[in-house]
Amino acid sequence: MALIVQKYGGTSVGDLEKIRAVARRVIRTQDQGNQMVVVLSAMAGRTDGLIQMAHEIAREPDARELDVLMSTGEQVSVALFSMAVGDMGRRARSLLGFQVGIHTNDLYGKAKIQDIETDRIRRELEKGRIVAVAGFQGLDRKGDITTLGRGGSDTTAVALAAALDADVCEIFTDVEGVYTTDPDICPKARKMDRISYEEMLEMASLGAKILEIRSVEFAMKFNVPIHVRSTFTEEKGTMVVPETNDMERVVVSGVAYSKNEARVTVKKVPDRPGIAARIFEPVFESGIVVDMIVQNTSEKGLTDLTFTVPKPDFLKTMKLVSEVAEQISAESVLGDEDIAKVSIIGVGMRTHAGVARRMFQALASENINIMMISTSEIKVSCVIEEKYTELAVRVLHETFGLDKDPRDET
Amino acid sequence: MALIVQKYGGTSVGDLEKIRAVARRVIRTQDQGNQMVVVLSAMAGRTDGLIQMAHEIAREPDARELDVLMSTGEQVSVALFSMAVGDMGRRARSLLGFQVGIHTNDLYGKAKIQDIETDRIRRELEKGRIVAVAGFQGLDRKGDITTLGRGGSDTTAVALAAALDADVCEIFTDVEGVYTTDPDICPKARKMDRISYEEMLEMASLGAKILEIRSVEFAMKFNVPIHVRSTFTEEKGTMVVPETNDMERVVVSGVAYSKNEARVTVKKVPDRPGIAARIFEPVFESGIVVDMIVQNTSEKGLTDLTFTVPKPDFLKTMKLVSEVAEQISAESVLGDEDIAKVSIIGVGMRTHAGVARRMFQALASENINIMMISTSEIKVSCVIEEKYTELAVRVLHETFGLDKDPRDET
Repeated sequence: MALIVQKYGGTSVGDLEKIRAVARRVIRTQDQGNQMVVVLSAMAGRTDGLIQMAHEIAREPDARELDVLMSTGEQVSVALFSMAVGDMGRRARSLLGFQVGIHTNDLYGKAKIQDIETDRIRRELEKGRIVAVAGFQGLDRKGDITTLGRGGSDTTAVALAAALDADVCEIFTDVEGVYTTDPDICPKARKMDRISYEEMLEMASLGAKILEIRSVEFAMKFNVPIHVRSTFTEEKGTMVVPETNDMERVVVSGVAYSKNEARVTVKKVPDRPGIAARIFEPVFESGIVVDMIVQNTSEKGLTDLTFTVPKPDFLKTMKLVSEVAEQISAESVLGDEDIAKVSIIGVGMRTHAGVARRMFQALASENINIMMISTSEIKVSCVIEEKYTELAVRVLHETFGLDKDPRDET
Repeated sequence: MALIVQKYGGTSVGDLEKIRAVARRVIRTQDQGNQMVVVLSAMAGRTDGLIQMAHEIAREPDARELDVLMSTGEQVSVALFSMAVGDMGRRARSLLGFQVGIHTNDLYGKAKIQDIETDRIRRELEKGRIVAVAGFQGLDRKGDITTLGRGGSDTTAVALAAALDADVCEIFTDVEGVYTTDPDICPKARKMDRISYEEMLEMASLGAKILEIRSVEFAMKFNVPIHVRSTFTEEKGTMVVPETNDMERVVVSGVAYSKNEARVTVKKVPDRPGIAARIFEPVFESGIVVDMIVQNTSEKGLTDLTFTVPKPDFLKTMKLVSEVAEQISAESVLGDEDIAKVSIIGVGMRTHAGVARRMFQALASENINIMMISTSEIKVSCVIEEKYTELAVRVLHETFGLDKDPRDET
């Protein structure tokens, strides 16, 4: 008997009929002889409705109370799902974050899971029940409700799969799997059968919008196989698994992009030791995730420091950094929201040279100017003007022959 | 410094502007030097919306899951309220049933409070915070969410006031206090300044719709003074307090009515010892509250047994009782939903004779037939045809001179 953790996102449980469809699918999988733990998101639209109320009633809604409010969305989903299962003659039991024992730190709105208890879930499973766990939510040490941030239900699912030593964590979504790039902007995009954790991590962090990045980190750390698949078909999707040797035969596996970042430049910063730390301290303290950081060579003891942050944090970042800039006598702070990041990803880069050069040439051939560059072992990212995003993705997809990836043919 | 527990019902927090108004009122009361614990219901309409979803997704929604679903309503209210207070520059903290430690039995949908912890609330109060407690909800021994049934937020408030030894429990509602009878059907109804717990208990249980009955029991047991008053004015309302001698000078304090009951008659039951217990056993076991019970004199070893139950439990009761009736060879089971109960209430009845007779005469003078009678120390109730309800209330209000109660004049 296998233990399967399934996660259904907001569109998969978007209305009562869809919740019933999910219930039928879960029962079908249970009938194949599996123990079932199901993680649900809030019904599509419900989270936005709650956020809107919060912002109508308070200019800056208290972060702790926002989590109390938001966590009701998933609570509604698991209760309705369990009723639907009951109506079909089976037994399901909903469990909220505090009932499972999903312990997190107290960073409201973007809390991190620290520990998950499994006793209660196992007891319910042993009674033959389907266990429906509210995604996205946990409890901090004080006993207060926390949420994991957007997409947090993926993390709940993978963390549960790790804690329960599940055989697989199936992430159900409205797409059929992980594609070589976004099919909406590149018709030649192709569904991959397999992708390594490392590659998925880069894809996720670069905005592939399929899996929340922390969920992939969790999966990699605890070796949880993830199956990304569609709620609306029975087709197999994409397996996210440990890297294997044959994966390296392909240089580039996918092209990702993100329009969700903004660029901040601090001009003419006095180049003293500790100055970067000084600039980033208030930003880090606010829990804002800085992505790329580029520091130019110092000239006359002055340097320019450029970095990117998520767009929703842009205004706050500008405010924080401007304050520091004044204190340290930097010349000015510039901001730009009209940027995009395009990236090529592949574990094969480790063993193939000249990949970055081919990327730069491809972009140059379309007259796309590169504003920032950042590389890692398995990816190269370029920040460009936002308006060129789609063009850049298509030309890179073509350049690296992703419409005919040989990996799947072996 | 006084400790005040305030409870605001669904209409008082019906939209965001109303929640802000409640926040302002609570802050004003805090500014007068009081510690504030605020119990909130779900926003008006929200509870019904949730129930409707439940009944759309399942024919008989699982009771445990229904409580998980329903409890989100109050969770939304306390979070939004706390945000509103924060937006006004003060500090509030929401606490759910599980966070306070409101322990109940596990009778889902109509759970009873067994114990309330006060540590967390006191800690928050000592920090100068307004504490917003989600009404209506608790936690059973297994750690599952329970709800106290409709109107349960009153019980939460009074139980909290008792546990915290509060100076007063203010119940805010959309009426200005407790009236001698329903002003909607009797224009001469008059607001009372004071009423005893015992009288209020009879008023509440008979459908005065102002205070949930268990909340009054709690208040009486722990001597918590209740102040029933309007959310929308600053006027004093009605104090519900221990009985005093001068209250007895008035024979009848109020007239109550209920259209929320149905009558069940088991015809020609073999009159053996234990037969009543046998009939009621399945009804009691289902948690259905039987109100009046009348057994006629036995004739030829056969008796008729008549009783009333809440209308929502009528069909279930008919089913349960019909099964028993067949087993014990009773002749038949009759049901009637078109009934109403009118009652006169007053602690003065204890010392005044002939009150019931005056009631029967008054009803007879209007040709209203009495179908069942039930009396207690301080009330007389008659079941009549539903269509005569309003007429009966008006004639009784007139008969006992309630439009000019001398109690308030002393």
